[in-house]
Amino acid sequence: MSGKRLIYLALGGAGEIGMNCYVYGYGEPDKERLIVVDLGVTFPDMDGSPGVDLIFPDITWLKERRDRIEAIFITHAHEDHVGALAHFWEDLGAPVYARAFTANIARRKMDEKGFSADTVKVREPWPETQKAGPFDVGFAPISHSIPESSGLVIDTPLGRVVHTGDFKIDATPVVGEAFDRAMWDEIAEGGVKALICDSTNVFSEHEGRSEATVGPEIEKLLLDAKGMVVATTFASNVARLKTLAEAGERAGRSIVLMGRAMQRMVEAAVETGVLTGFPSVVPIENAADVPRENLMLIVTGSQGERRAASAQLARGKHFGIEVKDGDLFLFSSKTIPGNERGVIRIMNQFSEKGVDVIDDSSGRYHVSGHANRPDLLAMHDIIKPNVVVPMHGEHRHLRTHAALASSKGRKGVLSPNGTMVDLIEGKPCDFVETGRTYLDGSVQIGALDGVVRDRIRMALNGHVTVTLVIDEDDTPLGEPWCDTMGLPETGRSRQPLAATLEEELGQFVERAKAKVLADDDALEEGLRRAVRNAAQNEIGKKPEVTVVISRLS
Amino acid sequence: MSGKRLIYLALGGAGEIGMNCYVYGYGEPDKERLIVVDLGVTFPDMDGSPGVDLIFPDITWLKERRDRIEAIFITHAHEDHVGALAHFWEDLGAPVYARAFTANIARRKMDEKGFSADTVKVREPWPETQKAGPFDVGFAPISHSIPESSGLVIDTPLGRVVHTGDFKIDATPVVGEAFDRAMWDEIAEGGVKALICDSTNVFSEHEGRSEATVGPEIEKLLLDAKGMVVATTFASNVARLKTLAEAGERAGRSIVLMGRAMQRMVEAAVETGVLTGFPSVVPIENAADVPRENLMLIVTGSQGERRAASAQLARGKHFGIEVKDGDLFLFSSKTIPGNERGVIRIMNQFSEKGVDVIDDSSGRYHVSGHANRPDLLAMHDIIKPNVVVPMHGEHRHLRTHAALASSKGRKGVLSPNGTMVDLIEGKPCDFVETGRTYLDGSVQIGALDGVVRDRIRMALNGHVTVTLVIDEDDTPLGEPWCDTMGLPETGRSRQPLAATLEEELGQFVERAKAKVLADDDALEEGLRRAVRNAAQNEIGKKPEVTVVISRLS
Repeated sequence: MSGKRLIYLALGGAGEIGMNCYVYGYGEPDKERLIVVDLGVTFPDMDGSPGVDLIFPDITWLKERRDRIEAIFITHAHEDHVGALAHFWEDLGAPVYARAFTANIARRKMDEKGFSADTVKVREPWPETQKAGPFDVGFAPISHSIPESSGLVIDTPLGRVVHTGDFKIDATPVVGEAFDRAMWDEIAEGGVKALICDSTNVFSEHEGRSEATVGPEIEKLLLDAKGMVVATTFASNVARLKTLAEAGERAGRSIVLMGRAMQRMVEAAVETGVLTGFPSVVPIENAADVPRENLMLIVTGSQGERRAASAQLARGKHFGIEVKDGDLFLFSSKTIPGNERGVIRIMNQFSEKGVDVIDDSSGRYHVSGHANRPDLLAMHDIIKPNVVVPMHGEHRHLRTHAALASSKGRKGVLSPNGTMVDLIEGKPCDFVETGRTYLDGSVQIGALDGVVRDRIRMALNGHVTVTLVIDEDDTPLGEPWCDTMGLPETGRSRQPLAATLEEELGQFVERAKAKVLADDDALEEGLRRAVRNAAQNEIGKKPEVTVVISRLS
Repeated sequence: MSGKRLIYLALGGAGEIGMNCYVYGYGEPDKERLIVVDLGVTFPDMDGSPGVDLIFPDITWLKERRDRIEAIFITHAHEDHVGALAHFWEDLGAPVYARAFTANIARRKMDEKGFSADTVKVREPWPETQKAGPFDVGFAPISHSIPESSGLVIDTPLGRVVHTGDFKIDATPVVGEAFDRAMWDEIAEGGVKALICDSTNVFSEHEGRSEATVGPEIEKLLLDAKGMVVATTFASNVARLKTLAEAGERAGRSIVLMGRAMQRMVEAAVETGVLTGFPSVVPIENAADVPRENLMLIVTGSQGERRAASAQLARGKHFGIEVKDGDLFLFSSKTIPGNERGVIRIMNQFSEKGVDVIDDSSGRYHVSGHANRPDLLAMHDIIKPNVVVPMHGEHRHLRTHAALASSKGRKGVLSPNGTMVDLIEGKPCDFVETGRTYLDGSVQIGALDGVVRDRIRMALNGHVTVTLVIDEDDTPLGEPWCDTMGLPETGRSRQPLAATLEEELGQFVERAKAKVLADDDALEEGLRRAVRNAAQNEIGKKPEVTVVISRLS
């Protein structure tokens, strides 16, 4: 084994919360055989990525080493772990392994792209394992906010590594497997070289609460409710859906599920046997037959997404159902940072309709799916690794988590995206270029291609199109013409903006020397500058400018 | 007095936290004499108002009643209360009254617009009052997060009204006047018809904490700090600046103020005698002479604003000063909802430089300037009004505050922007069209003018310019030409996008009937549709399209 090493590399997820993609390698340097853990997405926003549909990690490094990839393992079915799989699978061409529920969701995604179901292979949980080159990998059940989440137990010729995946320590998770202390003790028994560990909640100083504490609180709330109740949570949080539905049932309400994602998730959970004993559900089209005070909708859109059911209800009728004065809307969810505006928007829309809105600020109606600081330390103590590598966090989470591990006498290694770590040495051994790519419509573009930069510029500055026709003798035919978009119609002079700009351009063309008129670049630059200066004077801003010179020939 | 009424109308601030503008009127219906309380702004964002500089309330209603306006009163110098004054003053043409510190800030704004200082008149606090038509108005000092904040005591022939302005109940506010229970008791003594009351913190269920509790906590933090310390808060929170500077001084550090707004605020506070005993400050240019462990910067940019000092330091050197591994950055401030992304961005940039970042999540290093729920109720109980009209809040704040008042046996009136209230009857008496206008560069535009909508569309969809030259006989000269902006360079066919679009357009033009070629509207519509469909097919999205047809004549 001399000369061989065991490496870890985050291509995504260690520098943001989202787009998780981790790589493990074993072998001689630069010849390691590789496994990929998770292929997730993150979501665009107007500030940084307007018009973009999805954000992927840049996996160029992996594509260039395609022949060294033994397998892809998916820890759980959240979008930030599985959302990019179908988009990248052809580029990587390795078998995909997951547990049944995760595979069910992954297969739906593969199917949409025209790939067959057997691209994703179902594996039973630990102690069963899957060989992948020099790796032997087991899915160890761990509690989180979606069914069948798994930590990975990764055995290599250089020893064992534990990759927690997303997790919390929950003895009573309502749906799926409780945190199994005995199993993890046994996994740790022979010694673990490195723990690659979720960092999401490292700033939460109190111990985490169990999913089972939520139901009784929600039931109390429902018993006091007079009108219709609408509750939202992440569709993938199947345990919460069950918690909500059962609380509703106990409070004498009929349950209606609303939103495509919600129905898809419940379907997958039932198909895979994960979800049993879910209260019977009334189809949306029959909801109107149920008296409002006996009705509970469970809907998508906990993050205020404009097209989700919650936002639709906030705006007006949806599937014939309308909220009214005296109804109750419950966010059984946390607002992800960055989504505040959308969530607050629908809160106020509901308020305008007289609906009481309850959010998670009391801490009673939602619990996190991630381990808080004391629980992270508990996990370190169970696994007793030589090295702790924090993952699944922004830089500040990773840094704080690494320092936390070090403060307890373990070796905490700060390893953001692109920092390759030798897991036996417990230190960085290489640096890899990482980044993001965008799915934009049907095209994958690089984050730095300038496409999105141009969109942001048009959004900030508006856009002017200047057209000028020039004849065979380099003489302008008529005046330059301006079209504006995203700019005020009039400015300082109170005349139409386009007319003001055209006047300036006309003067520029009149004064322009023959040499300039004959030279597209010089003419374009002159026209651009004239428009920008005239606009600055007239409306106080310099727009983006497209100049089109049509030369007759 | 029969037939006369006392009215209240919010044009801004009751439906959002920001752009406050309230109107009181007394007289016969539709002939009331009016006073204006506050003229504030709110701030744009990429989601809803890209490229916009400031957001104002739409004061068309006031402009149309200009001859009925007796005066403008400014309660305090926060931007959301005074920021629109200089922009609207000419339209309203009434005298402006404020206390000295507020007037100092207001005059700086008026001066920038070329108005003389005496447009803003300084008034002494209650019990002095200012006549304004049928109104007699006193500035009653009240604690908040900026010096000389005032509630207004508004006496009218129909009785007394109290307008709290922004406030908290703070007996030890560090700078300025403590909450004066005896004064407010005396104001309430003869009976108050209506309390128009701040609603910002109605969802905070615990009693508010005093500004004086913050200093000792910050001092402890500073005594443990090894490297340079940088702290940020709102520049206008002069009490916090003093708290920070004094804690720094006690911990043996020299203080440097960084950021224009910071220096301007301290200057105004010193000029008006509000701020005394501020620790001596080291000029930025001498900061390099102070050992890092003895240095404390107090900087602008608590909301992560890209151009503020905090963000500049997070990116690199600023005024020759650079943060380093082992430094400490303190947010002595709350992140305003919607600003999370910017704040998190700089937190992570500091983390990458090895700087420890402390925010207000522990509750130790920041207290709010607004009254929490128990303090709101205390204010109701002190003033004992017949009617409580919640203001300064989103719809959900107003609604909850009104319900809270009602639950305690008072008449809570929900009065969002545009709902005119008869304050004696305690109920709505009219509805007025309200909205927003934008300052965009140097131009005021309506929020619904379509300018910003077009910017958002370009940001989401990209933009294509199509040009076509047509000769005197309605025959195309050459092919249609495409320029793209904010769109991928290639799509499905792997050919340049512009070329693909031009090919489609060329085919369209070739097939086009003479009638279409002769008709600008039909030709433009046909070209637009051809581009959008071709783009949908090639890149999966439909761009915005500008068509320019140049006809030779």
